[in-house]
Amino acid sequence: MSATNPQPGEKLLLGMILFDGFQLLDTFGPLEMFGSLKDQVTILIVGEKTGAVKSSFGPAAMIETTFEDCPPLDIVMIPGGMGTRREVNNPVLLSALRKLADTASHVASICTGAAVLAKAGLLDGRKATTNKKSFKWVTSQGEKVNWVAQARWVEDEKYFTSSGVSAGMDMALALIEKIFGHDTAINVANAAEYEWNSDPHHDPFVKMIPS
Amino acid sequence: MSATNPQPGEKLLLGMILFDGFQLLDTFGPLEMFGSLKDQVTILIVGEKTGAVKSSFGPAAMIETTFEDCPPLDIVMIPGGMGTRREVNNPVLLSALRKLADTASHVASICTGAAVLAKAGLLDGRKATTNKKSFKWVTSQGEKVNWVAQARWVEDEKYFTSSGVSAGMDMALALIEKIFGHDTAINVANAAEYEWNSDPHHDPFVKMIPS
Repeated sequence: MSATNPQPGEKLLLGMILFDGFQLLDTFGPLEMFGSLKDQVTILIVGEKTGAVKSSFGPAAMIETTFEDCPPLDIVMIPGGMGTRREVNNPVLLSALRKLADTASHVASICTGAAVLAKAGLLDGRKATTNKKSFKWVTSQGEKVNWVAQARWVEDEKYFTSSGVSAGMDMALALIEKIFGHDTAINVANAAEYEWNSDPHHDPFVKMIPS
Repeated sequence: MSATNPQPGEKLLLGMILFDGFQLLDTFGPLEMFGSLKDQVTILIVGEKTGAVKSSFGPAAMIETTFEDCPPLDIVMIPGGMGTRREVNNPVLLSALRKLADTASHVASICTGAAVLAKAGLLDGRKATTNKKSFKWVTSQGEKVNWVAQARWVEDEKYFTSSGVSAGMDMALALIEKIFGHDTAINVANAAEYEWNSDPHHDPFVKMIPS
């Protein structure tokens, strides 16, 4: 099983890790992109407990599988949101994340989700980026990470980290391009009528990092 | 109660109408934008039955309030998704939509959600737009609507209709601009690190309408 070269007929399993206080667009922007590849990707919403889980802004999603019952994933994703302030100190989630990341072909964070990856030690020695307004807090969670300030997203081997909220969609399309090819990424963006910022260095929001 | 001039301290109630087979980004793109205005907007997820409701791509959200129990809304929103093919023939939803729209200050659709507004008769004699790939089907649901092919979104008095999927975010920011002013719209876009396409006529996807 290799996510970079899926075999014909093989479906990749993408697990989105949710927690109380997750960010809506961090989660459902990338899932819109991967979800449109119905014949190639299966989406699983994973968390500590099954059932409803509230977002930062109120609306809730449903966790389908616990960490204990979660099968090995091809793609692990974690969004940001105010809940990351709590989850960086949650040993259950950090341990599950390390285990799932170990066997995954790709691991991706959106926004402040990078703080959780960093706190789990998964970004040590790697390049990564994150939300701009929360840049100082996130980077304090991983002192061994080579944090990149100006980036829409950063790719370092199997790790993809995106900037804030809407940047997750651009990163998701880059990951789709890596796994399924350029034409597929363009088709997915078009289906969502989305003008893909496909340049990882184009980041007009870097100026929002507090000095 | 006037949504165009909310009083200091007054919170607007935004109801997102969900149904089986709703589209993820249609729903959570606009809710990301309005949700960040926590002190000014309350979000309610509304539908025929409370509880989990599956999206077109699998992941589920939670309906909080039934149509019967739904209080009057300031802003009514309806997303697209494959479920709209069924909902255009659902008298319960069409009737609830007409009732909620009647007292709302603003009514908005994303993507093929316009088909449901059109079938409910709410767009008769109005300008409106919708998803490009599904343009023929949607426009067949409302023969008295002045359908606009090239538009990121269309505003006609209290009705806002957007093009496909990601266009909902651009429309949501335009609606936020109308209600709360330009600076607030820019602040919301920046918080999501989103490059707002603020030109309703900029629509590179119009070429996807099947000939």
